[in-house]
Amino acid sequence: MSGTESDDAERHRAKMEKRRAMQDAEVASKTVEKGLLLVHTGTGKGKSTAAFGLALRVLGHGGRVGVVQFIKSRPTGEKTALEVFGDRVVWHTAGEGFTWVTQDKARDMAACQGAWETAQALMADETVGLVILDELNIALRYEYLPLDEVVARLAARRDGLHVVVTGRNAKPALVEAADLVTDMTMVKHHFKAGVKTQAGIEY
Amino acid sequence: MSGTESDDAERHRAKMEKRRAMQDAEVASKTVEKGLLLVHTGTGKGKSTAAFGLALRVLGHGGRVGVVQFIKSRPTGEKTALEVFGDRVVWHTAGEGFTWVTQDKARDMAACQGAWETAQALMADETVGLVILDELNIALRYEYLPLDEVVARLAARRDGLHVVVTGRNAKPALVEAADLVTDMTMVKHHFKAGVKTQAGIEY
Repeated sequence: MSGTESDDAERHRAKMEKRRAMQDAEVASKTVEKGLLLVHTGTGKGKSTAAFGLALRVLGHGGRVGVVQFIKSRPTGEKTALEVFGDRVVWHTAGEGFTWVTQDKARDMAACQGAWETAQALMADETVGLVILDELNIALRYEYLPLDEVVARLAARRDGLHVVVTGRNAKPALVEAADLVTDMTMVKHHFKAGVKTQAGIEY
Repeated sequence: MSGTESDDAERHRAKMEKRRAMQDAEVASKTVEKGLLLVHTGTGKGKSTAAFGLALRVLGHGGRVGVVQFIKSRPTGEKTALEVFGDRVVWHTAGEGFTWVTQDKARDMAACQGAWETAQALMADETVGLVILDELNIALRYEYLPLDEVVARLAARRDGLHVVVTGRNAKPALVEAADLVTDMTMVKHHFKAGVKTQAGIEY
């Protein structure tokens, strides 16, 4: 190794050592363990997808997962894949499609109310470590469910339970109550190039 | 039902009918089917998580998935969970931790080079429908791999193969080559409230 290369390697090591020390100090400063309320919102792709990624993570640590789909109903790859975990994943689909498919407000409201009752039952079930409330933001946006009650119940979830809420246009009250909020921001989308919905990508 | 309720229901139906027609027209305008290059970047949570959610989706449709982790090495819940799919998931971990953990540039570069070779082998394997290149953006940012070569190879992927690249600070040349780019934007993070890294959430 030449002198210059060795200097470069040494500089890199010193810089990284400093960074590691900062990282360690930061990790040591975090001491709270709690069940989190997470919100995935924004117009980009990945909101539900990341929720199902979290499901995998929880399953890998031996937990059980509850999924309530408030709006979507198309058969999805993730549902089929998660069937391999048997009763460690409980899946409930409320709606019969987006509201512009059913075109029937009363039916949509009744379906959402039923889904919300299922959600509360899953949140009360102590064997469940993560509950995914998929597209709940849409139901809240259309006022199919009472926002105050939903946020209060989510905020009062039992210790150790993680809840993920997905969907565009998360309500400010929900964002306020949440521990983690990620906005999936669309930078570039293949639909603009005429690429269609494909199995494995959109569902 | 009173007159007002019935008017309201009718207005809703008419509005949703219009929306559905727009939606249908949009879907009909998309005709291209292709393997996509997806990039999950940004400082928020959900980049790798959404990639693993996509893996579930592909597995649910009967596909095989390749995972190459360029930087991280901590045992993760998603890795354990995906083991249930046997050889339908091929998992390769390159690094021994973030660069500030190893503090050895030469070793990190060699590990990334090996990972990139594995990635190319997975991309060539016609039984694989999705390849996840986890934290490749970090390896590119530290110039551990030649950007031009990597982007050229990704752009020249075979028909029907989806590739997801994750990590902060995606390079502009990669964004340019991608079909879909999502920036996971941090709105609110529990670390700020002193909550620590937890199984099932961060790994």
